[in-house]
Amino acid sequence: SGLVLVKNPHLDLMEEDVLYHLDLGTKTHNLPAMFGDIKFVCVGGSPNRMRAFAQFMRRELGLAAAGEDVADICAGSDRYAMYRAGPVLSISHGMGIPSISIMLHELIKLLHHAKCRDVTIIRIGTSGGLGIEAGSVVITDTAVDSSFQPRFEQVVLDDVVVRSTELDKDLAEELLACSRDIPDFPTLIGHTMCTYDFYEGQGRLDGALCSFSSEKKLEYLRRAYEAGVRNIEMESTAFAALCGLCGLKGESCRFHLL
Amino acid sequence: SGLVLVKNPHLDLMEEDVLYHLDLGTKTHNLPAMFGDIKFVCVGGSPNRMRAFAQFMRRELGLAAAGEDVADICAGSDRYAMYRAGPVLSISHGMGIPSISIMLHELIKLLHHAKCRDVTIIRIGTSGGLGIEAGSVVITDTAVDSSFQPRFEQVVLDDVVVRSTELDKDLAEELLACSRDIPDFPTLIGHTMCTYDFYEGQGRLDGALCSFSSEKKLEYLRRAYEAGVRNIEMESTAFAALCGLCGLKGESCRFHLL
Repeated sequence: SGLVLVKNPHLDLMEEDVLYHLDLGTKTHNLPAMFGDIKFVCVGGSPNRMRAFAQFMRRELGLAAAGEDVADICAGSDRYAMYRAGPVLSISHGMGIPSISIMLHELIKLLHHAKCRDVTIIRIGTSGGLGIEAGSVVITDTAVDSSFQPRFEQVVLDDVVVRSTELDKDLAEELLACSRDIPDFPTLIGHTMCTYDFYEGQGRLDGALCSFSSEKKLEYLRRAYEAGVRNIEMESTAFAALCGLCGLKGESCRFHLL
Repeated sequence: SGLVLVKNPHLDLMEEDVLYHLDLGTKTHNLPAMFGDIKFVCVGGSPNRMRAFAQFMRRELGLAAAGEDVADICAGSDRYAMYRAGPVLSISHGMGIPSISIMLHELIKLLHHAKCRDVTIIRIGTSGGLGIEAGSVVITDTAVDSSFQPRFEQVVLDDVVVRSTELDKDLAEELLACSRDIPDFPTLIGHTMCTYDFYEGQGRLDGALCSFSSEKKLEYLRRAYEAGVRNIEMESTAFAALCGLCGLKGESCRFHLL
């Protein structure tokens, strides 16, 4: 049917669904009228960048009136920012798995309540590249954890549930084909490693704590490269797992920041 | 000596230390002049609330000129917001362990470069209460994970390092004593449970996914209460572990939001 899958039998029994961190709700807002025609959702860490992306999309789609600014749909909440440009929604998710996970739970319910169909969700942003040219874009085929495994471990109460982190292969190829139309736009498909920490988790030598040598770091990153990892960031496994479970066609594109 | 402990031998070899997510650095800013007299750091999730807290502290300390606003010291970054009120720094950390962890790494290095002494760090914010009166403040003695254990598992490259999550008991008692001076201010000391997820991890029935019954949720929360847990949030174990390792006197106070 192309609808989003919400796998929660409790939801139908609720009189009102408040999307707390988006400052939206089923009683306070007409979600089908506001969002029913959304076909693409682009998400990224930084609110300023997602605002700039929405402005860029409005210009590209010929929707921008001169001097007109985009309004933050979630202005009543300082947790996330949300902008729209025609059928495209642009939302920030902060940094790390717990932060993107709260946003995705509420976004998925939003798309469900709004009865959106055939929605594609694309995560865009910066990442650390691994053995690739600076400025490259990595399109993720599979998100992997710090042991290079395609899995996301979610603690549900005190059980650990293991979820798959495969992303949409057709969408990845489609995005790669788009990149070929643009000159000097180095783009590749590869695995993306997702960590819970920017400093110790990613083998950085410049954190407040660092217990490993640069040799051990290089040996670890070499193993990651051999396992197919081409970039490192902090949200992709949760993004892939949640999109997969809820029937969203999802993809992750990260720009390699040197 | 009262100085912050930075346990990273690589740091002394670096010509410049850039605190990327705070938009500060050792070459671009005179950190001792800007921050050398800081004695208290208060951190919380929401940037708006940490701004309001800095304004409140300035009034309490008699530092506020009429109509004067507080300036965001990290205005060049939209990852975190930082304000100061005399010897008090007020910083936002976003939601979840990875987000607070990036901020704490950079804050600890900031206090180290600024040669601050005898700094107390207090995490303030909202949380979900467990079997306590709505509106209560919980002062954390120990942060525990979803199995009610006082530990924080940090992945360092592909090793799992287990860290202690005890907080400063004297500081907890001192804060409790302060609360007694204020009428109708229900305050208690207890364990705080830290989760990686707001919906499935905290037994909420209103996420995009929910595979458990309300009976199983109640049974889990009952066990948490019996283990001494009085509130649930998403940052305390990482906060306790990092503060403990770096010699910061740290405490976590959460207001129980109903």
